[in-house]
This record gives sequence, C-alpha cells and structure tokens, in this order.
Amino acid sequence: MCGIFGIENHPEASGFTYLGLYALQHRGQESSGMVSWDGDNMRVERGMGLVADVFRPATLERLAGQSAIGHTRYSTAGASAFLNAQPIVVNTANGPLAVVHNGNLTNARGLRRKLEKEGSIFQTSSDTEVILHLMARNPREDVVESLLEALRVVEGAYSLLLLTSQGLVAARDPNGFRPLALGTLGDAFCVASETCAFDLLGAEMIGQLDPGEVVVARDGAVRRYQMGKAAQPSRCAFEHVYFARPDSQVYEDSVAQVRTQMGQVLAQEQPTDADIVVPVPDSGLCPALGYSRASGLPFELGMTRNHYVGRTFIQPQQSIRDFGVRVKLNPDRRLIAGKRVILVDDSIVRGTTSRKIVRMVREAGAAEVHLRISSPPTRWPCHYGINTPRKEELIASQHDVEGIRAFIEADSLGYLSVEGLLGCLSGAPESYCTACWTGQYRVASEAQDDRQKVLFPIHSEERV
Amino acid sequence: MCGIFGIENHPEASGFTYLGLYALQHRGQESSGMVSWDGDNMRVERGMGLVADVFRPATLERLAGQSAIGHTRYSTAGASAFLNAQPIVVNTANGPLAVVHNGNLTNARGLRRKLEKEGSIFQTSSDTEVILHLMARNPREDVVESLLEALRVVEGAYSLLLLTSQGLVAARDPNGFRPLALGTLGDAFCVASETCAFDLLGAEMIGQLDPGEVVVARDGAVRRYQMGKAAQPSRCAFEHVYFARPDSQVYEDSVAQVRTQMGQVLAQEQPTDADIVVPVPDSGLCPALGYSRASGLPFELGMTRNHYVGRTFIQPQQSIRDFGVRVKLNPDRRLIAGKRVILVDDSIVRGTTSRKIVRMVREAGAAEVHLRISSPPTRWPCHYGINTPRKEELIASQHDVEGIRAFIEADSLGYLSVEGLLGCLSGAPESYCTACWTGQYRVASEAQDDRQKVLFPIHSEERV
Amino acid sequence: MCGIFGIENHPEASGFTYLGLYALQHRGQESSGMVSWDGDNMRVERGMGLVADVFRPATLERLAGQSAIGHTRYSTAGASAFLNAQPIVVNTANGPLAVVHNGNLTNARGLRRKLEKEGSIFQTSSDTEVILHLMARNPREDVVESLLEALRVVEGAYSLLLLTSQGLVAARDPNGFRPLALGTLGDAFCVASETCAFDLLGAEMIGQLDPGEVVVARDGAVRRYQMGKAAQPSRCAFEHVYFARPDSQVYEDSVAQVRTQMGQVLAQEQPTDADIVVPVPDSGLCPALGYSRASGLPFELGMTRNHYVGRTFIQPQQSIRDFGVRVKLNPDRRLIAGKRVILVDDSIVRGTTSRKIVRMVREAGAAEVHLRISSPPTRWPCHYGINTPRKEELIASQHDVEGIRAFIEADSLGYLSVEGLLGCLSGAPESYCTACWTGQYRVASEAQDDRQKVLFPIHSEERV
Amino acid sequence: MCGIFGIENHPEASGFTYLGLYALQHRGQESSGMVSWDGDNMRVERGMGLVADVFRPATLERLAGQSAIGHTRYSTAGASAFLNAQPIVVNTANGPLAVVHNGNLTNARGLRRKLEKEGSIFQTSSDTEVILHLMARNPREDVVESLLEALRVVEGAYSLLLLTSQGLVAARDPNGFRPLALGTLGDAFCVASETCAFDLLGAEMIGQLDPGEVVVARDGAVRRYQMGKAAQPSRCAFEHVYFARPDSQVYEDSVAQVRTQMGQVLAQEQPTDADIVVPVPDSGLCPALGYSRASGLPFELGMTRNHYVGRTFIQPQQSIRDFGVRVKLNPDRRLIAGKRVILVDDSIVRGTTSRKIVRMVREAGAAEVHLRISSPPTRWPCHYGINTPRKEELIASQHDVEGIRAFIEADSLGYLSVEGLLGCLSGAPESYCTACWTGQYRVASEAQDDRQKVLFPIHSEERV
Repeated sequence: MCGIFGIENHPEASGFTYLGLYALQHRGQESSGMVSWDGDNMRVERGMGLVADVFRPATLERLAGQSAIGHTRYSTAGASAFLNAQPIVVNTANGPLAVVHNGNLTNARGLRRKLEKEGSIFQTSSDTEVILHLMARNPREDVVESLLEALRVVEGAYSLLLLTSQGLVAARDPNGFRPLALGTLGDAFCVASETCAFDLLGAEMIGQLDPGEVVVARDGAVRRYQMGKAAQPSRCAFEHVYFARPDSQVYEDSVAQVRTQMGQVLAQEQPTDADIVVPVPDSGLCPALGYSRASGLPFELGMTRNHYVGRTFIQPQQSIRDFGVRVKLNPDRRLIAGKRVILVDDSIVRGTTSRKIVRMVREAGAAEVHLRISSPPTRWPCHYGINTPRKEELIASQHDVEGIRAFIEADSLGYLSVEGLLGCLSGAPESYCTACWTGQYRVASEAQDDRQKVLFPIHSEERV
Repeated sequence: MCGIFGIENHPEASGFTYLGLYALQHRGQESSGMVSWDGDNMRVERGMGLVADVFRPATLERLAGQSAIGHTRYSTAGASAFLNAQPIVVNTANGPLAVVHNGNLTNARGLRRKLEKEGSIFQTSSDTEVILHLMARNPREDVVESLLEALRVVEGAYSLLLLTSQGLVAARDPNGFRPLALGTLGDAFCVASETCAFDLLGAEMIGQLDPGEVVVARDGAVRRYQMGKAAQPSRCAFEHVYFARPDSQVYEDSVAQVRTQMGQVLAQEQPTDADIVVPVPDSGLCPALGYSRASGLPFELGMTRNHYVGRTFIQPQQSIRDFGVRVKLNPDRRLIAGKRVILVDDSIVRGTTSRKIVRMVREAGAAEVHLRISSPPTRWPCHYGINTPRKEELIASQHDVEGIRAFIEADSLGYLSVEGLLGCLSGAPESYCTACWTGQYRVASEAQDDRQKVLFPIHSEERV
Repeated sequence: MCGIFGIENHPEASGFTYLGLYALQHRGQESSGMVSWDGDNMRVERGMGLVADVFRPATLERLAGQSAIGHTRYSTAGASAFLNAQPIVVNTANGPLAVVHNGNLTNARGLRRKLEKEGSIFQTSSDTEVILHLMARNPREDVVESLLEALRVVEGAYSLLLLTSQGLVAARDPNGFRPLALGTLGDAFCVASETCAFDLLGAEMIGQLDPGEVVVARDGAVRRYQMGKAAQPSRCAFEHVYFARPDSQVYEDSVAQVRTQMGQVLAQEQPTDADIVVPVPDSGLCPALGYSRASGLPFELGMTRNHYVGRTFIQPQQSIRDFGVRVKLNPDRRLIAGKRVILVDDSIVRGTTSRKIVRMVREAGAAEVHLRISSPPTRWPCHYGINTPRKEELIASQHDVEGIRAFIEADSLGYLSVEGLLGCLSGAPESYCTACWTGQYRVASEAQDDRQKVLFPIHSEERV
Repeated sequence: MCGIFGIENHPEASGFTYLGLYALQHRGQESSGMVSWDGDNMRVERGMGLVADVFRPATLERLAGQSAIGHTRYSTAGASAFLNAQPIVVNTANGPLAVVHNGNLTNARGLRRKLEKEGSIFQTSSDTEVILHLMARNPREDVVESLLEALRVVEGAYSLLLLTSQGLVAARDPNGFRPLALGTLGDAFCVASETCAFDLLGAEMIGQLDPGEVVVARDGAVRRYQMGKAAQPSRCAFEHVYFARPDSQVYEDSVAQVRTQMGQVLAQEQPTDADIVVPVPDSGLCPALGYSRASGLPFELGMTRNHYVGRTFIQPQQSIRDFGVRVKLNPDRRLIAGKRVILVDDSIVRGTTSRKIVRMVREAGAAEVHLRISSPPTRWPCHYGINTPRKEELIASQHDVEGIRAFIEADSLGYLSVEGLLGCLSGAPESYCTACWTGQYRVASEAQDDRQKVLFPIHSEERV
C-alpha cells in the first residue's frame, strides 16, 4: 500500500504536497519522495523514513515549481528499499517523466522481460517502471496518448500520477481497484489517495476518478479521458475495513460511518453475552463503538496504544511473553478484571497477534474473551496492491472459524459476513473487490507467489 | 515533566530500562538518557529525541551491568537542551554518582549561588545538579546519609533516582508532589514514574513510595528510610487530568477510571442540550466517554488525530487558517455536520488552541459547539515540575469563564469544579496539590517568573 | 579525470579494490564507488567524498565476491554529482552489467539522442551510460562481442572496466588517450589507471593495455582482443606533467624521472639569473629539482603546503588578500626574503592562482620572482577527459607569454617548449596527444563548449 | 600535543580563530573546539575530527563576539576522547571561564584528589581542568590574580589561553616548555602555538611569550605579568625536530632553516659512501636537503607520501607485508633500484616503522640502505606534553645504536649528536629541554607511567 498526492498550478506546490503526504502518512512509513516541475527542470527528493524526516525546509525550497507529485511507501522487505522509493523520474526523448503509483500491475514481469529483450534498461525492480518504458518506446506529441497506449497493455491495479512537461496526469485502472480523489484549491487542482489530505489543505473534493479515467491538469484547467477498456468496477473494500483514515471519504462513503455500521451489523450477526465492549486500538475503535451501540453493552477504552512505537524497536534478549505486541498495546487490568470482554478488531491475518492480544487480556483478569472481527475471514492474498502474506500463511485459509478460535484461545470468535459488510457500503455489492475473502479475482495475475522484487540481482545501498 | 525509570539486580538492566523509558515516552520526547553500573564502571548514553532514536542495540550492549537508571525529558526551549539532558553523571571523591529527576527544586538558585561562591563548578544549568554538589561536599561512607544530608536543605518537588556504587537509590520529596512507584520483577527491584512501565516488563507493583521516603536497592534487597522533614501530602492532581497514561495507576487510582468519572461529574455539573459528545483526542477520550454515559448523549469519534506529527513540522508559507492544530486534529464533517456538539477536552492553557479547535468544528458544519473541560480553570503556574507558562499567559488568570467562552468562540463553556474533581480521587481532598487551580502553593518558590536555565551564560552545542 | 581499478579472481576483491582506489585518490576526490560480483549478485556502494569516507569495514564485507571494479571521480559542478557517481550498474536481458570509465566520449550526445528516440531510458547524464545501452540493444552470448559492437560506434577517449557475469573486461580506446595498466597478483589479474596502485598491493605490472585493446579476465585467465579500428596513438602527455602520481609508471616512463627531466630542459630553454629555485608544492617539486640541477642554483623548500585543506573551507567575510591560495600555500619569509627566486610550477590555467602565488612570494620579501612552467602554454580545452575550462578562460589562449607575465606580475616567465617536453618522453613524439598546447585534436568532438551534463533536466539529491 | 589559538578585539573573532586552527591542524587531528565571548555569553563548539569537519558556516556565525580561543587535539586513545575535547568551559561565581591548553601538568593528579576530597566535581579527566577548579576556589575581583594564585601550585608544562569576561589571558609556564607566540592584526591581538597561523591571517608576530609570562588582552590593549616562580628555561627542542610546521618560527629560529642545518651537521657527523640522499617525507625533506648539500650527494624524491591517508584506514584481512606503512609511503623503484641510498628521517620511536621503511626501500631495489636521523636517540618519555610511549617501548632505551641498526635492518645507522643539534639553534644550549634524549628532567613528575585519563571511571559517548 502507498499514499499518493499531486497538485498543479499552485505557487507552493512542494509545500502543499508535503502536507498532503503528511495526511497520508498512515498509508506508508517506509519511504517518502516528491518531484516538482518548474517549467524547465524536475527536481527530486526521496528518502527512507517518515515525511517529516525526509523533507526539510531547504528541501522544499529546492523543489521549486507550480506542480508536484509525491509518494509515501509501505514497508517492504529487502535491501532494494531505497532503490524502489518513488517517484521514479526518467528522461525520455520527449522530455522528463515522473511517476508515483499505488497498486500492483499483474503482468509487469512479462512486460519487463519483453522490454529488456528489446534493450531497455530498468532502474528499479518496481512494476511501476514498466509504464515509463512503454511510454518511452511509443513517444507521441501528446503525452496522454503515449500513456493511454501504454496502459492498453498493462493489467492490474493502479492509481497513478505522472508529472510531465505537459501537465500533471492522474489515472485509475479500469477496475478502479484503489481510490483516487480529485479536488480543487483555489486555482489549483489536487489529487489524493484519500480526502483527509484535502481537509488538511482546505481543498474541496470534486469526487473520485472513475474507473478507467485519465485526468490531465495543466495551468489550472482539467481535461478528462476515458480508457477504451471496459471492466467491472472492483473497488477494494478493505480500504474501508482497515487501510483508510476514519476521517476520509473513500469512494462514496465516510470511513468512520461505514466502520461504525460494520460494528452494528457485527453485533447483530454475532451477538454474545458479555459485560463490556473493548476496541483493539486504533482500527477497532469505530466498529467497537458500533457494536456497543447495537448490543447495548458499555464501551470501555480497556486497551491503550503506545503511539511512540516505531519500526526500530529493540527486543530484549530475555524472553518476555507476548512482548512484541505488549509494547504497542497494554490492557488495563483495572477496567477489565473480572469482566466478560468482547474485543473488537478489524481483521485476523496470521492469527499470532490476535492470540497474543487474547492472552494479554486474559492475563489482565478478563473472565471471558470474545473476539469479534469487523470483516470476513481473510482467506486469499491480494494481487492488487495490499501487502498480504502467501495464502498458506493466512490462518483463515487453513482453518475454519472454530479452528481459528481454538488457535487464538478465545472463548468465542465471530466474523462479519461478506453480505453484512457489503450492506454497509453505498455502492452496488458487485462493484467491490472481495477477492481476499472470496477468492473471486477479477484480473488474473501472472505470479501468485513469488515476488517481483526478487527478479533484479543487483543490491544497492547508496550513501550520500 | 519527565519520566524516570530504574532497575537493580537484573542481568538485562539496560534493556529493561530501555523498555521502561519506552512506556514512559509520553512524559517527555525532547531527550532521553541512561546510565548503567557494572560494579566497576558507569556508562552513559544521552541524546536528543525519542527513546527509539537515542538507543541502538550496540548502545544497550555497551551499557553493561545489573543496574541502570534512565530519563525521558519534556521539551524545553533553548540551546541548552542537550547540556541538560539527564542522567547527570559525576565523579566525586567517594566515587561516581548519577542522577535522574522528575520535579523542580524551588530553592536551587540560591543553593547554587552559595555553592559556586565556595568554588563549586556546575556542568549544567539544571536544578538537579545542586543535589550532587551538596553530596560531594558532604561525603559519608554511606551514600544514603550523604543524600539525606543534602535533601535536608533542598526544597520543592522531586522524585529522583540515584545510581551509586552502593546501589540504586530512589527518593520522593516530603510533599510527594510527583508520583514514584516501586515494583519487583523476579529478583530485581524497579522504580518508575508510572505503572504502565511495570505492565510492559511484567513487573508487579508494590506501591508508591511514601512522601519523604528514600529506598535503597542493592543486590536485590531493599532498605527503606523516612526523611525527618514532615510535610503535608500534596500530590499533583494534574497527573490524573492530563499527564499520566490512562492505563497507569497513579497514587491509589486508575487513571482511565478517574478520567471517565471526571467526565460523568462534569456532565452533572455542566449539562447542556446537544446531539453528540465528541472527544478531543487523545486526552479527551475518557472524560468524553464519561460525559456521554452520564448525559445519555451518543459518543462520536468526530475528530481524528494524526499520530505521525512530530516536532519538526514545516509550516507552509501561504497562510492556512488554524493550520498548526489542523495538521494534528481533523474534524469529520460527515459525523458532525448539522449536529449540536459537546466537545470534551482536559484543560485550557492559553486558549488559542481551543479557539482553533472550536473554529474547525464549526467549519465542519456543527450547528453548535459546547466545550466542556474535565478540570477547573488553570489560573496559576506550577512550581513543582509541570512546564506551564507565566501567570499572565494563562487565559483563566485574565478572564472569567464567560470571557474565556467569548475568546474561544464557543456557544457555551463549562469547567469541572475543584470539589468535583477531588471527589473523583480516592485520597483525602487535602492530600492533593491544587495550586494551579487555587493558587494555594504549599512550598514557597524563590523565583516565580524567571527560568532557572537563563542563569547560565554558556550555550553549548556539541558535535560528535 | 578519474581513477579506475579492478581485480579478478581474488578472495578479497573488494578489500583490494579499496586499496587500489586509495592509491588512486589523487585522480578524483568528489565521489567513490565500487561494485562486486560473487557469481550470483552484484553489490554496489557509491558515495560522495573520499574513498576512506565512503567505505566502512561493513561495506567491504557486504561487497562479497572474487571480482570487483571501482572508481574515484574528480570534482565536477552541480547537483547531479551523486547521480553520476560510478560505477553505473544496470540489469539487461543478458544479466547485470557494471562499468567504470576514465575519459570522455566525443559522440555521446548524438548517440544518446538516437537511443532515446528509440525508447531507451537513461539513468544518468554521464556519457558512459551510452555504452551500456548500446550493449543492451545488441545482446550476444559472448559479452565481449556485445562490447566490441558497441565500441564500434563510440568515439573519443576511454579507459574502461566492465564487470559482467562473464568476467572482468578492460578496454582502451584506439587512440589510447588515457593510461590503463595490467598487472598480476598471485592468481589474480588487476587493472589500474596508474601503477602506484599495484605497488601498494604488491602486484606486478605486466604492461599498459595497447590502444584499441580489450582484455577479459575470468577465473584467473586472460584473453586479449584487438579492436578493428586503427588510429594514431595519442597518449595524453599531461598525465606526465601534472595528473599522475610521481611514483607511477605511465606508458613507458617513470613520472618522477620525466618531471625532473622536464625541469632540466626547462632550465636550458629558459635560464635566468637568480639565487634560489623554489617549487610550488606538490607538483612543482620534481621539475624544480631538475631545474636546480641543470642551473646549479640551490633548491629551497620555500613554500609549505597545508595538506589538511579539504573542499569545504569557509572563507572569512573580511577580505584577506589572496586568501584562497594562502590557506593552501605559505611562502617562508625566512628562506625567501631578499632573494631572487625562480618559482617552478607545472602549468598555468586561468592565471589567477599564479598571480596570487607570485604576489605572496613577493610580499614574503623576494627581490625578484621568475616563474618557470614545466609544460607549454595551455591554449586549448581537452576533449578527452581532463576537466579544463572553456577556451576563452584559458589565459594562454587570450595572451602571449609577455601578456601572461604582465598579468601574473612576475619579473619573468618561461614555459617549456612542446619539443622540449616530448623529448623527455620515451615514446615517439607523434604518439602523444598535444591538443591542449597545439590544438591538434585527433578525434573530432560534437560539442566543444557546452557540457554534456547540462543535457539532463532532472536534478536529484537523494537522502538515505 | 595540541595547537592553540586565540584572538581579542576582532569583529570576526570566530572566523579568524577557525583560520588559526586550520594552520595549526598538523598539531592535532583528533578533535577541535572553540569558544567565543560577545560580552554577555560564551558559546562553545567542540567535535571529533578536523577543523574543517567540526566547523560549518552556521557554527561560526553562532560563535558571536569579538574574542575567541580554540584548540586542536592530538589523537589519544579511549572512549573519553570527546569528553576531553577542549575548550573546557565552566561557570563560576565570578562568571564563565574557558581554557585551552598545550602541555602537561605534572602534579595534576594529586591536586585533583585534594580538590575532590573538598567536594569539587570534575567534568573531564583532563589535567587542564584542575586550573579552573583552583581558580573557582580562589575567586578574586581580577581574574589574573586568581589565575596567578592557581598557577602557583601547578607544576609542569603549559602554554594556555583563558577566555574570561575580563579579557583573553595567555600564560606560559616558568620553564617555557612549549612555544606560544604573540601577534597583532590591526587593532586585535592574537596568540598562537606557531607563527604559521599568523602568516595565514596576515598578522605580525611580536614575539614569543617569555617563560613565566602572563599576558592579558582586553579591548585591544595588552597587560603583561611575570610569575614569581623562577625556573631554568627548558624549551622543547623536539618542536624543531619534528612537531612544528617548517614555515613557522619557533622560539628564535626558522624551523625549515634549523632542520636543513641539522641535516648538514648530520652529514658531517655521520658521513657515508652512497649514491643518493632520499628523504622520508614529509618531515625528512629539510634535513635530507641539508645532508645532500653538505655531502654533495644528489637529493632524490625517492619516496611518495599519500596525503589522503586518514585515521580510518581499513586493513585488508590478507596479510600484506609492511602494509600499514606502505599505504602512506611508496618508494619509487625507478629512482632507487641499484643505488646506495641514504634515507633521512627525523627520529626513531619504537623502530618498527623504520624497519618497514628500510625493508620497502630494499625491496624497491636499493643496493644499500643507510639511515640517518636528524636528532639524537629518543631514550626517555616526555612528561611535558608530547605523547611518547613508555620508556621500555622506546627502542633507543633498550638498545645501543648497533642494536637498533640490526633491528631495523639498515646497512648503517647514524644519529645527530645532542651537541650537534643544539648547535643548530640560536638559544643558549642550556635553555632547551633535552630530557627525551638525555633523561635530564627539569621538573619532577608525580606519575611517570600510568596515564591520568584512566583515573576517571565514567565512560561517556553522547549522541546529539
């Protein structure tokens, strides 16, 4: 997962892109980057770490110009991290091109092999770079035509932004897997993964890009194109479950409202006798509140999250039981002891974290621990941009609900149904992708297991 | 404010002190430090920034030994920041001495002047160092006697830890202004500002140190001393209002329960007609929940906090209204629009932030904004360790409640009463310090306005 | 100018490449880089600064494998510095390729434009990358054939090393503009810009690569190829004047001996009445010694060089006359005062530095200052890899010797003649390039004035 | 050894101190520091590494004021390096005091123990700090009186600078062990270890401070005091042999001239049959030139020094014979092979480096290697500020000249005599300290073997 933001025709393009990325920080903390265009030059800055660490006042000053696009990247493994930090910026016969991308191209590997055989040299191991090479191979006077040509052969999930000498281009794949919202701010246009970025800037949302739509902003005016390829809308519903910020609007709905509603439906589908409803913070807050409302059981802030926990935590040598989770989450014995607790969380992946949480809550004195999950069992890996583990590591692909319950040592376990979940969303049920719960993949993927990044046998760690 | 932690007789003393500081990070984010003792050497590490930034695996390995003490420091202004990072470690004729301190000595300036006239040379501009010089001037075979001698002339607020060649020493001032809890972990003793540090380590709380108590831990055994000076217990009640983590026990009470109770009493004292109760996160969460329960009005998570906001945020040049607050807090229009909103926060200092929040909520469409504060008006500066501004900057010392309401542009404003607040705590009402609300200072301060750190005309920024 | 080094079939390939670069540090101080190959992976490290700053023990350990090539780069202007640090490492359909290059391709711009029109995307603004793209476009089973094919269309000056999955490849252009020496070290082969790198490692020199020769080292065996293109040998004579280390053998001659000989011929060609001969250290040392011997005048170390002066020197605001030179060179009043001084330096570029030196020596009390230059007047820019300014900035292209003398304020000025200089070298006079003195360029250049690096409108400064 | 510099009454005091330290960099490369005084505040900057690394333009701007003192420190072992970087700056009842020191106090350990027993707390393990504590214990209205009082009990070698609110104070011990020169620059006074610092600034030397002299510069005027303690002048002659820069005047003599003269006397005292005279660069350059002149044998630059070698050189794992020396010095086979070589160096300490050099020269083909040393055998450790090893590690304290010759494997070895050396200096022979050659220590030392820095059992590594 990643967050992307762009702005065109604004005197403080880099400063506002910085703010936009700040608001999208929850979508990726591994690396950040930005490129600006001042009519003559593109200027790039990329770095490992949070937006606040990568950009300094002097950096933003250097990134001159009236348009800019930026990127925050989710943690991925391996030494290739910096090499793959976005934006990717290249020079072509038609001038410089920069791209940021949220999603995953499902036929990138094959396209890359073909391009390499024809003599193309890739800079990164990222699937995103394929688009640039396709564009470089088919230069047109109008860069949008070159892009449309390239997107004709590309498959999979992409919400992407291009910075070119002909304007800022935004594109969303024909299935519309990932969100991408368009907004205005005075004379400027802006584009963002989520609307919370608009709120921070004081921008107004115009709406989401349609699936298959390409938008070009230049000098404060916008042209909109529709790709020829028709496809069934397949919007990621997991954005609403977990990924998006609660104060964003994603597709047509308020995330916070959808999540609270999911908790209410969950209470109806999976009721149980208990004393209190406790959220696993932060993503369990809204559904737990909904569960409490629908069930009439009191809502208690019985777990505290340490928001200072970063990526570089040092484990003590001496084993502390459930330590990795405990440093982030602490149950409050004084609120929990002796109570029958309904814990509400958004999802279960491998099951190991859930087991640790259940154990911690029990050790804090809970009489019973009932886990309720505000989404269906996650049984299939995502091929469209969410970094899930392989199928065999997903506990719900290996066990039924009772098996999972036994593994996580809860007194009971209940999931929200697919129908229940889709009923909380405004769109037609068939307009959402539910592949991670149902296995119904709407776009085939060339490589289900192995990871694209292994392809590239050069490991680079640069030092400036 | 600061957080302190120490552990004695543990094979991973530095690793566990790191964890303890991690859990106390909310008490100070400016600098962190630790000193360990291995029977022969003291080893020190101090740095600007978060615990996770200052300590690396190699650092913790270097900090060898079975005992250690550490410190996290709240943000203070000025170039002297690093110079004053704790622990302070010195060498005396009786061996090395290290100290960490939470609190404020009210007669440090006079004592320092006297010591300097006698030829003592101070390393820092911190009040804490006075204690070390007093001890160096009165060396005794038993380091505790030397400490007791020093504390006889020292006045004010201190919860402090000393690391010496004779053991780890913890002391709490006779008024017991600041908390300090004692715990056990297997064969080790540990001491912490708050019990959430014990929870993380799996340590058991024994209890708070008594006011005026000195505890010495050596080789896993503990001796307890009581200072001769009697004084009225004056425990800081603001720890419960704002400073402590909700999952800590402070003095005799659960912080989360006290805060929720404060919200309930606040609803009784300051009711109003409205549609929803919205907390200002994170410290308003518990009292808003209490207010919702007592009033029967629905609790809504109508504001989202961006937890990635650090200290180095870059302001855009172009003015964005209420920008500084907006980057941290975003009201959710979809939950708030058209509603009469009761906002619950813990306190008002200067009033400027509250005004920005009220404005933002109104711009997000709230029909009415009623602000409720879960503590009495803050009218007096703290002399006992909390970093409040001067009296004249406190809005409640300049205006009555109606004047404040007008300034912050709320439709109504209500504070919790002092009696109401004290009624939420288990201890006798007179055992708490209420000086910041009532002006009843129980220990006189030599210098009410000017800051001790200005005393020292050397500004140092070292680079290694 | 740059220094390049490579080694094949050595268990400590990266460690020995580090040493080789260390010995070649005088050929470039701006950036350093290295790539290693372990049979499966290429690993790269590049950084700004000296070899000793860029490489750490952990870096060398990471750069595993039995073969490696490295590069030190001379200071160039602009933000593109890091982007262009070598080695350049790319992935092609035939596997990874890495290259380091000393020289300058005279038709790179045209080749690049052509390749870009065909869809190639360049990573750097360096001329060197053209070779890799040409190879990627013409993959052959034998990488050497692919290289020979590429070199067929490339023109200009290049001594280059390629690291490939098929071995280490060294190539020297048909004119042999820049030196490149081949050596053995036990079972390993090594290649270096200068033989002083061999001395440090204890390697034995086999000889220089012939102009137009390509050598492939694989598993400790060597194959040698000759390009079809015949060309007149055009070895850079300026290597002997200034660039090479005095303890190197370049082409067929000892640099120190050639330089001393130049001083002797200079004394014969440009005698004058004086008291002492003083070198401008360090490059004037050898020719001054030669001048002293031939003239019989005493050699005095009358100027001291501060070897700690780096690139980041801070200028005082208050003007100090001739400050920039003075911090590097200090004349010794006690040796110079009252004397008629013959100053010996290797060359004059713009004349401003020489004027400052003449003034300083005069201020130190010299009765007369006679400047003698151990090379002919530099009138033409180099197109073959030495970073000279534009023609109009070269003082000798604007003034005759008397005009230069007047500008630098010397009492007399004398240059070595081209014939005199060539007479000091063992090779046939026509086998050396003298273009910077005579304007006789043997390979035409597409772009005499503007700089290739301006071509690329992306400025990148990455932060890891 | 260290270099110190100070300036008073100059608008760019910190900038000029930076330059002064730059010129004194050869006296210490481990750490650098500076303190400035603007009439109200002292501002300090210290850091590990070269002057050019520690100070940035922003640093110098921060170090405001019309007076400043600075320090460059020679490499010492251990973790205490940064702790002991100078200046030491403290606050006393009489205001702030800063000190930089070149030398070694021979009774510091006893004084420190006494002060600690009286309650003083030391910040560093440096002998220098004792002076500040003595001054703090005896405050006088006139800081010079306080200093004179302190110096009454201090013994040993010191050239020191104090920055105080009453002016810049310079003091030289009664024996005058270490140099200290006074100069003027317009309305400013400056003080430096060596006059090469004056040359860079364009300052005029007034002369050396007399032994036992104290000079106070304030507002551009100077007062001079003489300590009561009389002592025999004992100026360090090793400054002329090795430590000082050749272009400095030390005491009454030009260093370059003295060194050349030493080479001439050496040639007379220790003649031999040979073909060429080769200096070991850089310190052997002048004496080799002198030897060549007196002997009539040709001077050859037969060894090249790599000036890029820093402190962090990485040794290869595979053993290279004589590697540590070879990376710094490379003999030139083409100049040496077949020749009978007289190598000239300034001194022999342990003999291991000399042996490596002799071997390298022989491997480069020398027919014979005759080593000539331009000082007498170093038999005794220095107690007055030069960092020599213990007596038993000095090869000349364990072996006679023939034994040393055998160890270093030279064909012959000859040293300059004490009388010969003193004859090259202008001062009376008895006015120089010759303790390292003769064992005639003129001031007793409390601790001949163990090192003061071991005294302090706190190891500190701070991170900002």
